[in-house]
Amino acid sequence: MLILGIDPAIRTTGYGVIRAGAGRMEILDCGVIRNPARAPHSECLRRLSGGIAELIGHFQPDAASIEEPFLGRNAATAIILGMARGAILAALAVGGVPCYAYSPRTAKKSAVGSGSAEKEQVAMMMAAQFHIEVRNIPLDATDALALAVCHAQIAMRGPDLAALLTKPI
Amino acid sequence: MLILGIDPAIRTTGYGVIRAGAGRMEILDCGVIRNPARAPHSECLRRLSGGIAELIGHFQPDAASIEEPFLGRNAATAIILGMARGAILAALAVGGVPCYAYSPRTAKKSAVGSGSAEKEQVAMMMAAQFHIEVRNIPLDATDALALAVCHAQIAMRGPDLAALLTKPI
Repeated sequence: MLILGIDPAIRTTGYGVIRAGAGRMEILDCGVIRNPARAPHSECLRRLSGGIAELIGHFQPDAASIEEPFLGRNAATAIILGMARGAILAALAVGGVPCYAYSPRTAKKSAVGSGSAEKEQVAMMMAAQFHIEVRNIPLDATDALALAVCHAQIAMRGPDLAALLTKPI
Repeated sequence: MLILGIDPAIRTTGYGVIRAGAGRMEILDCGVIRNPARAPHSECLRRLSGGIAELIGHFQPDAASIEEPFLGRNAATAIILGMARGAILAALAVGGVPCYAYSPRTAKKSAVGSGSAEKEQVAMMMAAQFHIEVRNIPLDATDALALAVCHAQIAMRGPDLAALLTKPI
């Protein structure tokens, strides 16, 4: 099963692609869709939408795993985060990829055993776990990788249990 | 010049298409992209994205005019409104349609002379203005039509002045 993890934001969206099979997982790709600081929102959303569509075309993931939005107190920030999320979810839905949401804490706890680990720790632990060099994991892609691993672990408990634990958003 | 006005929301997105030329405007289409109350967000966003892409393909608008988001105090509501907006803005950007934003108050003041008019009043006044029957304007499309008219009036003051008044989002 192939899973695309996504940590969305208007300027810096991390992604990670893993393949998970019986008893083993491997990282196929990870990276960041980065938008210039001064690019208008429309242009950022076009690039996010196009970037996700490209990842779907290339990897044909079975599912996506996205970060649950953090509900701060600032509605203006929430609108912008929502916009990034909306462009990404629409691209996934157009591509027919079901999408599941987990909190960053749940994702990190599932992937590296600690929900409060910093990005650097998560990168090091995932590099060791997946036998790749830590410099090949951009810091902004660590949460996305953790989200992908988290969904793989839940989904592979079997479809019946998985259905109880989570449902596509 | 052809303008697509959009009043976005996850369940009920109003739209209106107008043609504006020297001294005259006409309504070409107006309606609502309606999503079932229980449809998952992904499915709603797919339908919004697809609906806007269809309108772009059919009418080839020169510009879009969208409602500025209302910044309430509830971050959870703001995220969801942002998601609808993000899927729509991405579809516009992918289609190469520049998009401008106006507050509902500015739009209604520009279109019917009163920023505080109710939907019913706006519908009646626009029906009279455009010589169409009021029953052909769905209430949820009135704000979208007002947004389209508002942008037409500003854009037709001439490109130089228009550039001062507004810029694509």
